[in-house]
Amino acid sequence: MTISHRLLSAMDHVFPAPVAEAHCDGPCGVYDPASARIAGEAVLSMTKKILALDMSAEGSHNTYSRYVAIKEEQADDVKRELCILWHDYFKPEHLEAYPDLHTIFWNAAKQGSTCKTTVSVEAAETLMGMIENIHNMFWESKGRDIPWYTAS
Amino acid sequence: MTISHRLLSAMDHVFPAPVAEAHCDGPCGVYDPASARIAGEAVLSMTKKILALDMSAEGSHNTYSRYVAIKEEQADDVKRELCILWHDYFKPEHLEAYPDLHTIFWNAAKQGSTCKTTVSVEAAETLMGMIENIHNMFWESKGRDIPWYTAS
Amino acid sequence: MTISHRLLSAMDHVFPAPVAEAHCDGPCGVYDPASARIAGEAVLSMTKKILALDMSAEGSHNTYSRYVAIKEEQADDVKRELCILWHDYFKPEHLEAYPDLHTIFWNAAKQGSTCKTTVSVEAAETLMGMIENIHNMFWESKGRDIPWYTAS
Amino acid sequence: MTISHRLLSAMDHVFPAPVAEAHCDGPCGVYDPASARIAGEAVLSMTKKILALDMSAEGSHNTYSRYVAIKEEQADDVKRELCILWHDYFKPEHLEAYPDLHTIFWNAAKQGSTCKTTVSVEAAETLMGMIENIHNMFWESKGRDIPWYTAS
Amino acid sequence: MTISHRLLSAMDHVFPAPVAEAHCDGPCGVYDPASARIAGEAVLSMTKKILALDMSAEGSHNTYSRYVAIKEEQADDVKRELCILWHDYFKPEHLEAYPDLHTIFWNAAKQGSTCKTTVSVEAAETLMGMIENIHNMFWESKGRDIPWYTAS
Amino acid sequence: MTISHRLLSAMDHVFPAPVAEAHCDGPCGVYDPASARIAGEAVLSMTKKILALDMSAEGSHNTYSRYVAIKEEQADDVKRELCILWHDYFKPEHLEAYPDLHTIFWNAAKQGSTCKTTVSVEAAETLMGMIENIHNMFWESKGRDIPWYTAS
Repeated sequence: MTISHRLLSAMDHVFPAPVAEAHCDGPCGVYDPASARIAGEAVLSMTKKILALDMSAEGSHNTYSRYVAIKEEQADDVKRELCILWHDYFKPEHLEAYPDLHTIFWNAAKQGSTCKTTVSVEAAETLMGMIENIHNMFWESKGRDIPWYTAS
Repeated sequence: MTISHRLLSAMDHVFPAPVAEAHCDGPCGVYDPASARIAGEAVLSMTKKILALDMSAEGSHNTYSRYVAIKEEQADDVKRELCILWHDYFKPEHLEAYPDLHTIFWNAAKQGSTCKTTVSVEAAETLMGMIENIHNMFWESKGRDIPWYTAS
Repeated sequence: MTISHRLLSAMDHVFPAPVAEAHCDGPCGVYDPASARIAGEAVLSMTKKILALDMSAEGSHNTYSRYVAIKEEQADDVKRELCILWHDYFKPEHLEAYPDLHTIFWNAAKQGSTCKTTVSVEAAETLMGMIENIHNMFWESKGRDIPWYTAS
Repeated sequence: MTISHRLLSAMDHVFPAPVAEAHCDGPCGVYDPASARIAGEAVLSMTKKILALDMSAEGSHNTYSRYVAIKEEQADDVKRELCILWHDYFKPEHLEAYPDLHTIFWNAAKQGSTCKTTVSVEAAETLMGMIENIHNMFWESKGRDIPWYTAS
Repeated sequence: MTISHRLLSAMDHVFPAPVAEAHCDGPCGVYDPASARIAGEAVLSMTKKILALDMSAEGSHNTYSRYVAIKEEQADDVKRELCILWHDYFKPEHLEAYPDLHTIFWNAAKQGSTCKTTVSVEAAETLMGMIENIHNMFWESKGRDIPWYTAS
Repeated sequence: MTISHRLLSAMDHVFPAPVAEAHCDGPCGVYDPASARIAGEAVLSMTKKILALDMSAEGSHNTYSRYVAIKEEQADDVKRELCILWHDYFKPEHLEAYPDLHTIFWNAAKQGSTCKTTVSVEAAETLMGMIENIHNMFWESKGRDIPWYTAS
């Protein structure tokens, strides 16, 4: 089956008078550090729960393995979500206001890795602080005042 | 859309004294309808952008295909994130306060599918309204006052 | 477990004259609880194998970690596959015949989570029973007689 | 936090008297060609629906893009599920009974690719025939009699 | 229900004379065994690191679980990447030059599974040898001389 | 593009005496820009094939949609693979030798996005040039001489 040329030219009539976009800053323009924050909270929660495990209890090894896997996955999500902000939201014009932009994201990603290789509440809280810092920088750059909160 | 200043100042009273959670009853206890909201916003944004496309412009078919794929993926994320809330956060004891719980989630998931099979701003806005409703129900069930906002 | 010969011969009557579907009700109209059943069987199998592990044997900790991860993944697949049936196949008109529809799926999803957080043959067998129940309800709703079987 | 040596040796007591596995043929021993069959049915369904699309109808380009993406994904699933059977279930001792084993799977995988690159009912039906053939070979190799059926 | 011998022998007539494709370079024509090699190196590296772990050190169980999960994932990647070469790159006309093609890929995939179920440097090195062999066969089939190297 | 014979014979001298790595710097220490290069080649290949499509040919819309989806996925892989190098391989001590490290990766990621939003051979070739540059920087930082090649 093919789409005839008639159909292709018919499309000109189907999508009439498109609204001009004054500016567009990415695929969908929906960026929100909340995604990284939620994953960061899960990293912190899992870290605390791993440390609190009674390893002599029945099923504790199942729980331990699961918690490590969830911590791993969520730390990965933090890194990926931060990358989206760094790659896709922030642009060269932001560098003047935020000259440490690259270092901030680099360090946060590396802290995500630290939360994987350790089981440390301090490391996870440091990561959360870095995400909060990025939250503030992000919303400031958009001229909006979105308060930081945690879900847990 | 922004959060009104009245709500923002109200939050000053909420955050210094967050409701303590006596216990945590899940893998990580970190649930937040913001994940569904962000995906829902992307569905709405993509829908608007698809409708606004000038199909005679160079590369417009590339853009059209990409936008449909992103809309598809994000609508899927809405459905998955809502499922997590329904499966894992809400428990039998919530049914008394929210007797329509199942119907609310069922309809929202089906609305996610509608946003896939159509290119309709109305469908996407209906989905956003359903997510906002779930946001309100969720935070009320936790006794917290987290204002609704959108990132875009 | 096998399919009884009685059922097998009954199918000879079913298959030559399949119920025609008058209309198509979804993206592809291909729904089959077998997907959830296969994942459920893997959950049960992994549970039994974890319990049977000789933890003093060489490599047993590698095996233990792997089995927990597979159990986790497969229980997740059960939940996801059931969600597809609940979201996309079942429609408001089914509620009259199956008034407990929502509760059935909610409980099955929660049982999937129980199979993650425990290493319990009883929990996994309960999950399998719930999937079999959904299998029967599903095929009955389509007016077809597909016998239940397990692959393992 | 560490697990003390005391705990490690305690594990010897936690997992007592493991059941010896007489034989074990893979991670979980749950193989079922139904997974490939369900994906194959979706490929066939999408192919038919693409060919039946009225491209002048509103939203038809959204539908077309979605159907192609679903066909792509499902054909990929066919290939992956068949690979699992070929890699993990079938063993050298099966080659005597099924000397064409490799060719059968190779051709089926290549047919999966053909279903991606074309929109052809004939190609999709050929794929379904190959999956049915594998279904028969698989269950025969296990000495079981599981009838072939399709869900759609 | 079984496959009749008649059908099996009929296939002998179908498969020995496949329709020759004058040339076909696949979806993108970009095949490179380096993808499998990189994943194979990670399997080998993780295997060595698991064996070198001091399980009495703080955090060693977190590390152990993570390494097993990474080994699992990377061995899966090896199998998947090899499948792409076998399915999509190699064609019937290659069988004359490489009559053991199917066996080579089958054994390599099974070796990938062995690297999952064991923690064995020997198994991982055997896998690497198989990948190197495929690297040589692949580039030879393209008439190119790409030297084998490892990144680690 | 091929590797010149001069380089190939030069490698004979490089490989028998690989630089020993005194320490290991990550989860597995296996980093290789080849992963990004392979994905980048697929982006370039898909771009060329999209532009070469005869849209009046049967099935061309299926092909167009598939190629855009593959281009999208592969450009995403480029971004992800580069992120792994930036996050996990490069360390503060590399900044002295490569003061533009952050900008190089930032621009390459943004170029990956450009290859998604456009169908431009020039954009894809620019991306390939950036990946080659990273390849050179990466191997130089390890004191190794791995020649650049492309698989297609």
